[in-house]
Amino acid sequence: MAAAVEFMHTATLLHDDVVDDSDLRRGKPTARKLWGNPTSVLVGDFLLGQAFRMMVGAGNLAALDVLSNAAAVIAEGEVMQLAAMRNADISEDNYLRIVEAKTAALFAAAAEVGGILASASQTEIEALKSYGKNLGIAFQLVDDALDYGSVNRVLGKNTGEDFREGKVTLPVVLAYRRGDQTGRAFWERAMAEATSDNPDFDADLELAVQYLQETGALKDTVARAAHFGERAKDALALFPPGNMRTLLIQLSDFCIARAY
Amino acid sequence: MAAAVEFMHTATLLHDDVVDDSDLRRGKPTARKLWGNPTSVLVGDFLLGQAFRMMVGAGNLAALDVLSNAAAVIAEGEVMQLAAMRNADISEDNYLRIVEAKTAALFAAAAEVGGILASASQTEIEALKSYGKNLGIAFQLVDDALDYGSVNRVLGKNTGEDFREGKVTLPVVLAYRRGDQTGRAFWERAMAEATSDNPDFDADLELAVQYLQETGALKDTVARAAHFGERAKDALALFPPGNMRTLLIQLSDFCIARAY
Repeated sequence: MAAAVEFMHTATLLHDDVVDDSDLRRGKPTARKLWGNPTSVLVGDFLLGQAFRMMVGAGNLAALDVLSNAAAVIAEGEVMQLAAMRNADISEDNYLRIVEAKTAALFAAAAEVGGILASASQTEIEALKSYGKNLGIAFQLVDDALDYGSVNRVLGKNTGEDFREGKVTLPVVLAYRRGDQTGRAFWERAMAEATSDNPDFDADLELAVQYLQETGALKDTVARAAHFGERAKDALALFPPGNMRTLLIQLSDFCIARAY
Repeated sequence: MAAAVEFMHTATLLHDDVVDDSDLRRGKPTARKLWGNPTSVLVGDFLLGQAFRMMVGAGNLAALDVLSNAAAVIAEGEVMQLAAMRNADISEDNYLRIVEAKTAALFAAAAEVGGILASASQTEIEALKSYGKNLGIAFQLVDDALDYGSVNRVLGKNTGEDFREGKVTLPVVLAYRRGDQTGRAFWERAMAEATSDNPDFDADLELAVQYLQETGALKDTVARAAHFGERAKDALALFPPGNMRTLLIQLSDFCIARAY
């Protein structure tokens, strides 16, 4: 079942890179860059099909219910994100709703299914689901911050990808709301006009980071992430102490720590 | 379950049009033409997710097994077809293997699942599966012929799309094998160099149809289709006569008749 979740995840990455026209992922050329969009779409579909085959093979209808729901919710979240592209004035609540769907739903389903297959109690299954959901939100928000070089780092080679694509993330949501007229006009223009071959990209990105720092948007994105990381850990509090619980808690802490 | 199969089918159409860069489907602008590739990829994923959700909702593991297998096989078939693109010398056997995967697998699964849900005997379920598979092959081969205007018709507005994309279908497989040196050289060049904005498209297509008619490739593609249509009908022979059997037999006959 873990392998099936990983296949589902890989399928969404293959399709996301087509949707976002991305040339780099984790600092390496994307599959679509190497083998083209058609291959990425079809191999993504193949992995989705394989994932469902493996899940059905496990023969547990409750687990299937959770994972097939997650697959639909994730796709819905991607569509929601596409519809929200370039709108700097999206509310934090709406942005979090997208994150819950496109990112946290798979974390939640993966954790919940572990409980189901281990015949855990309903309360324990809910706790695991809650752990996964909150960890997923924390992960995404830290990812959003890292794309702008995060709190203490300088801009690196792989930063500014969201900005380049006009993808509105929590740092932008906060900087826009807190900004003065000049700041808001900057974000509106930057998001609306973002292109992959913007000749002023470096200057625009530098200005963006300046606004993000002035308004405290990066720092507070990580603070929001830390809040969800804490909720993830507390969700596990009802399990007896042990190696696995410690590992899951450390995973949440690591997820926040990488923001610095 | 029928709705879930239809959703799966629609998802593959949305993705196929992205993969093939198609602007028209059934004579109308494709979704990708109207709303862009990203939307078509994501909405396809959404429909796939919804389809699995609906299938899981039916709660029948045997049916889920059949349909999740079909999803994986269909995607595999699409990848096979992509790998075989532009190769005029693919064998008829290999081409049929692609058709079985990319087209007939969903027909077969849809028919088989009907038997499973109706608690039919294993022999009856196998018969339905066989009906679907053979009907699917017949359907695809007739579709291949119709793309070149079919046996008795002149070229119309929606013909030549496969040719334009360098998609090797059974008419091409047969015309290439049966052709002389000039004919083979034509097909190799036409398939290898096919582009959506070929300035000589009309002349090339006219020549293609001439070769297809000279070699009897169109006529025999339909003859091959008729063979699979007969097998589909005979698969149903063990069911008692009745309205539903008659309808399914008429469906197979219609599938062949539309070639003329």
